[in-house]
Amino acid sequence: MLVLGIDPGTALTGYGLVRGEKGSRLVAVDFGCIRTEAGWVLTRRLQTIYRAIAAVLEKFKPDAVAVEELFFNKNAESAMSVGYSRGMALLAVADAGCPVFEYAPATVKRAVTGNGRATKEQVQYMVQQLLGLEAPPSPDDVADALAVAICHLHTALGRKV
Amino acid sequence: MLVLGIDPGTALTGYGLVRGEKGSRLVAVDFGCIRTEAGWVLTRRLQTIYRAIAAVLEKFKPDAVAVEELFFNKNAESAMSVGYSRGMALLAVADAGCPVFEYAPATVKRAVTGNGRATKEQVQYMVQQLLGLEAPPSPDDVADALAVAICHLHTALGRKV
Repeated sequence: MLVLGIDPGTALTGYGLVRGEKGSRLVAVDFGCIRTEAGWVLTRRLQTIYRAIAAVLEKFKPDAVAVEELFFNKNAESAMSVGYSRGMALLAVADAGCPVFEYAPATVKRAVTGNGRATKEQVQYMVQQLLGLEAPPSPDDVADALAVAICHLHTALGRKV
Repeated sequence: MLVLGIDPGTALTGYGLVRGEKGSRLVAVDFGCIRTEAGWVLTRRLQTIYRAIAAVLEKFKPDAVAVEELFFNKNAESAMSVGYSRGMALLAVADAGCPVFEYAPATVKRAVTGNGRATKEQVQYMVQQLLGLEAPPSPDDVADALAVAICHLHTALGRKV
């Protein structure tokens, strides 16, 4: 089972593809970051995010997509920016006909570190360990995308989280 | 010159097409409202908005699109919702290769009523008068979409606003 995790943001959108089967180790298939520049017009930033996610879906054809649930504890300007980027990612996923699963941030942290209040560094370190990577995935957005994919695999494969 | 005005919202997205030429009256070519239900999954709501705007652009091939500029005086939840719907509209417009123009809400009100602080009822009434409609366009979202299209035509055709 191949899962795409996405951590959407207007400037940086992290994505990570993780393959998992019952009884075997998780494998990172691909991961990376979609960058858009603050100086670009908004429509170019939106198209870039939509098209990059659509291209990842087209290339890897994941069985499921996992994203973090949203909380409304941010200011209105950053909330709108999240709406833009998250909307682009979700539209691309829906257009590809792929099912989406949402997990609370604390659930994701607990799935990868055992601690729902883990720091970003702990998440990066444990994602590296669980996937056998040579270095912690960076920036945070990539580690968070891989983490939410791992969280969905743990749930879907019935592992203890 | 044919201008599409859009007033995006997650539940209701108003749109209005207005044709204007130098020296002749403005004409409403088409207007209406894209509705999505609160009970729908978010991806269905996003796809509905994107596809409906894309269909309007494909059918009428406007020369320009006009939208209101955004202000960040709302709460974070509604700001994110605006990000979703505005993002869908702007992506559809960008994918159609159509130029977008933004106007401050007070500029739009002044263009149609002469008063930057006009009420919603005044905007509806004046949009009806300017376009020679039998009734005020309703709901507000449709009147606002027609108003921002009129505002762009006044600017583009060099009329006093």
